[in-house]
Amino acid sequence: MFLSNEEKSYLNQTLVIANKSVANGNHPFGALLVYEGKVICTSENKVITTNDITAHAELLLIQMAQKVLNTKQLADSTLYSSTEPCPMCTCAIYWSSIKRVVFATKATRLLKIAGDGFELSSTELIKLAPRDLNFIAEENTVQFDKLHKEFWS
Amino acid sequence: MFLSNEEKSYLNQTLVIANKSVANGNHPFGALLVYEGKVICTSENKVITTNDITAHAELLLIQMAQKVLNTKQLADSTLYSSTEPCPMCTCAIYWSSIKRVVFATKATRLLKIAGDGFELSSTELIKLAPRDLNFIAEENTVQFDKLHKEFWS
Repeated sequence: MFLSNEEKSYLNQTLVIANKSVANGNHPFGALLVYEGKVICTSENKVITTNDITAHAELLLIQMAQKVLNTKQLADSTLYSSTEPCPMCTCAIYWSSIKRVVFATKATRLLKIAGDGFELSSTELIKLAPRDLNFIAEENTVQFDKLHKEFWS
Repeated sequence: MFLSNEEKSYLNQTLVIANKSVANGNHPFGALLVYEGKVICTSENKVITTNDITAHAELLLIQMAQKVLNTKQLADSTLYSSTEPCPMCTCAIYWSSIKRVVFATKATRLLKIAGDGFELSSTELIKLAPRDLNFIAEENTVQFDKLHKEFWS
């Protein structure tokens, strides 16, 4: 599926956030949530600086978004992530009612680069649940992959 | 696998916590962490009262435990849960380095009772990751299942 220029712009913002995350001493991940054409919140990864392995960008983003949007609004939002969400975040996105996710680096590619993670795509995991959730992978992920290769080497 | 009396006692404590969770206005789940024969921390589910779908008992427990134990100590701890962890919590347990989980009600049983969730056991999910994590299911779960049936009906 091709992304619109607006969607590519949002996705590129997650790369900027992921770079900030590294600059702040954390892992290279960034996420943001868009509702009705507006960025509602953004989140870096904070695993290292908070000493909390649950502090992934997407999980923190959902925790913030729930304070601003109700369930129906979340269902009509799109979550953009610099990397395909791990099963923890995929499941959290499912529980949050968000129904659309756009991401760059695939989980399987990250697994090869970082050496730890799950051999399971978000789409495969969501197929095992009763409600739909649409994961859309950007095809050109060179810059996103480059950040991971630099960080995890 | 048969649980020792000590392990059964810890598991039964998660049922008490799950009941408290309901009494406090939340979903019927409870978890506790044991390290070197001592209960390090306990957690109820807090999804409703905090308006946060990530506030599952196990996720909150890990967030607390990380403040008390280091990674090596977490790896030598056992997490007890009244119900098999969902994929979000299973993955969080994996990232935390905890290597042993004892639970009562199976995820597939909860899915039938509650009508939402993932058709995927914790053990199946963990097989897709490079490090081991041992999930042990208690066989006699009548009281645990009863709480779910009463709550989700």
